[in-house]
Amino acid sequence: MARLIAADDLADIARGAAVLGTGGGGDPYLGMLLAQLAIRAHGPVTLVELDEVPDSACCADAGGMGAPTVGVEKLASGDEHVRAFLALETALGRPLTHVICGEAGGSNSTLPFVVAAHLGRPLVDGDAMGRAFPELQMAIPAIYGVSACPLALADQQGNVVILTAIDNRWTERIARAVTIEMGCTAALSSYVMDGATARRSLVPGTISLCQELGRLIVTARAAHDDPVERVVERLGGRRLFGGRVTDVGRRTESGFARGHALIAGADRWRDQECRVEFQNEHLVAIRDGQVVASVPDLIIVLDTDTAEPVTTEQLRYGLRVTVVAAPCDPRWRSPAGLALVGPRYFGYAFDHVPVEDGGD
Amino acid sequence: MARLIAADDLADIARGAAVLGTGGGGDPYLGMLLAQLAIRAHGPVTLVELDEVPDSACCADAGGMGAPTVGVEKLASGDEHVRAFLALETALGRPLTHVICGEAGGSNSTLPFVVAAHLGRPLVDGDAMGRAFPELQMAIPAIYGVSACPLALADQQGNVVILTAIDNRWTERIARAVTIEMGCTAALSSYVMDGATARRSLVPGTISLCQELGRLIVTARAAHDDPVERVVERLGGRRLFGGRVTDVGRRTESGFARGHALIAGADRWRDQECRVEFQNEHLVAIRDGQVVASVPDLIIVLDTDTAEPVTTEQLRYGLRVTVVAAPCDPRWRSPAGLALVGPRYFGYAFDHVPVEDGGD
Repeated sequence: MARLIAADDLADIARGAAVLGTGGGGDPYLGMLLAQLAIRAHGPVTLVELDEVPDSACCADAGGMGAPTVGVEKLASGDEHVRAFLALETALGRPLTHVICGEAGGSNSTLPFVVAAHLGRPLVDGDAMGRAFPELQMAIPAIYGVSACPLALADQQGNVVILTAIDNRWTERIARAVTIEMGCTAALSSYVMDGATARRSLVPGTISLCQELGRLIVTARAAHDDPVERVVERLGGRRLFGGRVTDVGRRTESGFARGHALIAGADRWRDQECRVEFQNEHLVAIRDGQVVASVPDLIIVLDTDTAEPVTTEQLRYGLRVTVVAAPCDPRWRSPAGLALVGPRYFGYAFDHVPVEDGGD
Repeated sequence: MARLIAADDLADIARGAAVLGTGGGGDPYLGMLLAQLAIRAHGPVTLVELDEVPDSACCADAGGMGAPTVGVEKLASGDEHVRAFLALETALGRPLTHVICGEAGGSNSTLPFVVAAHLGRPLVDGDAMGRAFPELQMAIPAIYGVSACPLALADQQGNVVILTAIDNRWTERIARAVTIEMGCTAALSSYVMDGATARRSLVPGTISLCQELGRLIVTARAAHDDPVERVVERLGGRRLFGGRVTDVGRRTESGFARGHALIAGADRWRDQECRVEFQNEHLVAIRDGQVVASVPDLIIVLDTDTAEPVTTEQLRYGLRVTVVAAPCDPRWRSPAGLALVGPRYFGYAFDHVPVEDGGD
């Protein structure tokens, strides 16, 4: 049932989105602030369930594109997200009735609230990935043949680009080049779809799941319970590793934040080492030379004490973290899904092994 | 008075355009072939004088963007130029009544014929530079405050981008990034303007001048006259240097063809050396360490025997060439013009000295 989301709800949503964001999707704190500002200025956002979206609806996502490492230095105002959404609407020549969330991730699950609040349009409770991924063609609607185009990009200065590409891979290539030129981050609206397509191809209930995860972490902390364990349970995942970050290699390259973190084991992982590699989002976790989880499954780095999700740009020496893996939306494990986001796409020479089938 | 341009007229126009193109503007032969094909398929093009363009006309240019070094390997079909023009029209939401020529240059003065023939629209006898320049903001209309945006880019595959930037420098930056991603060449339509603006801000009669120059070269050759001398006279220019190309350094960089040619002097320039530096177009001519001509004046490299214009990508060891300089449109010598295309913009530490004031 549709419900209103107020500014106070955003903290939980942002925290939960950063859990599902597997290290990426932009900074959760900054996204939360922008969403709260927009809701305080324009009123609460109506969150509608996927089942409530009429077939005739015209939906598009709203969020950010680029390197999260840059996003924490070159701050967004939120205006560029509204501008991208409206530019897409103008290019389409018909009203966009609903805002959708492109991915569950740091700020990309709260930026849609900025657009929804500002324009007074309902936000759909769902997302296109069930997690975050670094490239535009990596969306479950793409598996169903939905085009990312027409696509709008806008920057903080007022530059706007409308792209119509021949396929989603070309969309990614050209939109990435524009984003880099715009300063390595840009506001994005894309994946226009009607209500029937949204119901078929989105992951339902993502915003509510984010809110639930965020609240669950805070509640467990307050009860001196183990918040990491509550996240693992809720996502049907498992702990891969725990320890301290001893090394982080990070570079902003080709418009992405790429790199790795090394974690020295503690407790049951004493004398072991875990390497997490990322491209905006965590791609693989390698424990003592053995791959223990990979895309498309979720590899989530949490602060061991507080279960606060740690984005790839927040990873730093000395942080005590727990690495958790959780199964992805089953559609990502189809041949079409793995072609888009399996380990081989990212240059790894091994196949995906579902996290629940891996040894421990 | 309006007149029809047939396929047979294109050879002269292409040759003359390559003279005014100062080494750039794309390959004249390839542009000529595409224009001839289009005219043979769709009929002759109506060339209208600037004075005949009604105030209410809606004009836009049609041409190519990118590195000429790439343009001779990744051949255009002409379809992408039609697609860019129509995409711009769709984005505008009103018909483009006239095609204009963005620059006098190798193929950029013949590609507008492709669009004009294909769509049955008149082509305006004029251009936006009176020569060719490498970057989008380098157009006389820009001096009058005309925006290059909205701008359309299309590639041979079918990718289309519509850009609305905050100023012409940002237009150049973002369009260049897109062009590079499209494979270093793209079809372009931009500089939408009404008829009154076209009359005020374009260089009148450019296509006719191209045709006249081309014909004059051929006629002089047939009469065993000196075709180089005829070009120099017609443009009110002077010979800077003559000799043989001894070295060419060329790189495709940041979406441009950049480099230099060294020419060892012959006859009255025996024992002297001339260095011509270029970014798509010739920027400066340096004789024995002294600058003898620079942008915005035209620096034209002609085959010494035939007066065939030599584009920067055609420069090669052993070619016997004459370097000619000719004055640019006077508007380029205004402070606003020099800020856009003076030698300092291109990184040189000297001011422009009009070619007619230079020593010899």
